[in-house]
Amino acid sequence: MTNDSTTPVTQAAHRARTAAAAIAPLPRAAKDAALAAVADALDARTAEIVEANAKDIAKARAAGTPDAIVDRLTLTPERVRAIASDVRDIVALPDPVGEVVRGSTLPNGIDLRQVRVPLGVVGIIYEARPNVTVDAAALCLKSGNAVLLRGSSSAYESNTALVAVLRDAVAAAGLPADAVQLVPGESRDSVTELMRARGLVDVLIPRGGASLIKNVVENSTVPVIETGTGNCHVYVDAAADLDMAVDILVNSKAQRPSVCNAAETLLVHAGIADVFVPRALDALADAGVTVHADTRIAAHAEGSKATVVAATEEDWETEYLSYDIAAAVVDDLDAAVAHIRRYSSGHTEAIVTGSQPAARRFTQLVDSTTVAVNASTRFTDGGQFGFGAEIGISTQKLHARGPMGLPELTSTKYIVTGDGHTR
Amino acid sequence: MTNDSTTPVTQAAHRARTAAAAIAPLPRAAKDAALAAVADALDARTAEIVEANAKDIAKARAAGTPDAIVDRLTLTPERVRAIASDVRDIVALPDPVGEVVRGSTLPNGIDLRQVRVPLGVVGIIYEARPNVTVDAAALCLKSGNAVLLRGSSSAYESNTALVAVLRDAVAAAGLPADAVQLVPGESRDSVTELMRARGLVDVLIPRGGASLIKNVVENSTVPVIETGTGNCHVYVDAAADLDMAVDILVNSKAQRPSVCNAAETLLVHAGIADVFVPRALDALADAGVTVHADTRIAAHAEGSKATVVAATEEDWETEYLSYDIAAAVVDDLDAAVAHIRRYSSGHTEAIVTGSQPAARRFTQLVDSTTVAVNASTRFTDGGQFGFGAEIGISTQKLHARGPMGLPELTSTKYIVTGDGHTR
Repeated sequence: MTNDSTTPVTQAAHRARTAAAAIAPLPRAAKDAALAAVADALDARTAEIVEANAKDIAKARAAGTPDAIVDRLTLTPERVRAIASDVRDIVALPDPVGEVVRGSTLPNGIDLRQVRVPLGVVGIIYEARPNVTVDAAALCLKSGNAVLLRGSSSAYESNTALVAVLRDAVAAAGLPADAVQLVPGESRDSVTELMRARGLVDVLIPRGGASLIKNVVENSTVPVIETGTGNCHVYVDAAADLDMAVDILVNSKAQRPSVCNAAETLLVHAGIADVFVPRALDALADAGVTVHADTRIAAHAEGSKATVVAATEEDWETEYLSYDIAAAVVDDLDAAVAHIRRYSSGHTEAIVTGSQPAARRFTQLVDSTTVAVNASTRFTDGGQFGFGAEIGISTQKLHARGPMGLPELTSTKYIVTGDGHTR
Repeated sequence: MTNDSTTPVTQAAHRARTAAAAIAPLPRAAKDAALAAVADALDARTAEIVEANAKDIAKARAAGTPDAIVDRLTLTPERVRAIASDVRDIVALPDPVGEVVRGSTLPNGIDLRQVRVPLGVVGIIYEARPNVTVDAAALCLKSGNAVLLRGSSSAYESNTALVAVLRDAVAAAGLPADAVQLVPGESRDSVTELMRARGLVDVLIPRGGASLIKNVVENSTVPVIETGTGNCHVYVDAAADLDMAVDILVNSKAQRPSVCNAAETLLVHAGIADVFVPRALDALADAGVTVHADTRIAAHAEGSKATVVAATEEDWETEYLSYDIAAAVVDDLDAAVAHIRRYSSGHTEAIVTGSQPAARRFTQLVDSTTVAVNASTRFTDGGQFGFGAEIGISTQKLHARGPMGLPELTSTKYIVTGDGHTR
């Protein structure tokens, strides 16, 4: 199970393993004390964090980085305060470690318990936002895991400053500082080494754009949890309340288009297309959304104030993350399901319907992390689901699916207790 | 998410996906009826199965295959009857699909439910034993999954006959025959294609020797559940009941040495070595076990009837699967834990102790799928744990850890139900 090549990355992973073994058995109180210390240290050392961040910002501006990306990269004192506050929210969450998932006394008298334990060493590979550095570290610490953070090189100064604050606070609270480490090296090689550290790193969670995630999924020998690609659909059924359908459509698409649970495709039952599509086009126009329409949607575009362009095959597969939506008329619910099966990334699909059989059939047949009935796709979120925090949204079926909270950062082990039992 | 290269393997995987979509929403009664038909068909067509098996046996004998392997490959009418009976046991197990794992009403009134769903398409890559063909197919069907079976080429005729029987019975029961398929092609290429069918195959479960598992783990882009390597330890603590310790040691090692939950290393607390080691050596000798001893164990070998050889570094890492055991004296419980952390494959470790604090510390610090207190390592088994059947024993931390029953062949999805809820 060991990986003997010693590089700065594998050395960091070895230190993380040692730290993980030390924090795994700690009770909640010890972990919470460390997290409280982290929150206080973020408040106390805001100035040095903002100063380090200014260097990243200057570099990004000099490189001509778009304003939206620079904004995501920016840490103000207010934002650091918000990050510290998020850490305090994590302190308040229950500790998943030690939860008895299953337990029984076997016929032979053996007591069997399946208990939650930390995963061990969690690697996070992520882009831009430096707040992920603190969020991910806090969630991993709370669940008894050590974390190896590989952020974007564009946030290198910010992440270095944040991790210094985190490590100092963790050490001051009596926990091993190596439970939180930045992966050494800014080059692509360090990502490759992290992906090959099987036996040292227990799981890799890539967070970012599709190409980052694809790279990790295809090249990692460490088990990966695939996150966040969202080609989400809203299907408006024949039996829909059309006011509700307009509200859910606009909210799913336009309330925050840049996130993975925003809708990217509208499917409309043919039976209501004549009345619904003109209303939908107007509402989308009011929200500033461009519609990439099939011919049956486009037939309603004349006289509409909407911006309508012809959809190509590529549109059905696209996660726009912008004020764009693909739209098609489908013959019935089963055709909607077939379209979703073919093109969806399996994140979230919503149906708007007043029909109970239609709702039941849609939820049975659609195979995505989340199926919403008469609700916006935007609810697929750890915070909205009441998990308190999330480390990402898994779009794979293994281990965790959908928003991942603290329990998803754990494994289990069985404890078998006997009185000298043999077979 | 699609894989566009079309080879016989990817074509089979596409057919499996279609079949998986059809069987996923089926209620338990429909799946149980198909499984009952499978059991009946195995009984009715025993002669043709045994006949096909005879060809594999003849080929194996001609190739000079060792008797033990030939025995594992052999299907007699009695063995086919036992396989059919195992299928009927799976009929009697509860259906994991549809189980509500978690549910609540959110503060905004949305109803949230997390429900078990099938994984989709499960690939099994396995060696020798043709009974795995039926077991794996039955467990996958029961949990609503389609299965792609890639058995050993040495069992090709047997597997072909068994899968023909399975497919006929499944189809006669009204389910798609493509829910059960043998992966086409006997060459290594077909394994490679299966490992690269990400997006078509949801999970691969390799079952077999260490080199098979290593190959799949390192080369698969499809998510893998690692199974079955067992370098299991028995630690005899200072506070152990020595009669109990001898019983557990001998049972763990010698009751069935060829399986993954058999013990491979004995660790003895220094404080009881003088009294326990001579007894242990005699008991192991009576069971026909050769001891690969460190110097502190070997010091007790003189006058013992045991076969004792000097242990090398390699012995601590070896899964013998034979009448051999490595043995060392350790200074204390923490040294035992350190030895286990360094060398164990993370399958099962047992402590024999009368001390409650020692039992607690050992179970907290040892990070394996199963920790046994005063019980044999041989209990780590789906049947023993009361799961009714198992598809393998996962030694990884993601998704499933330890014996995997029907629930471990499922994922979950969230169902969000509102009344027009938006954010």
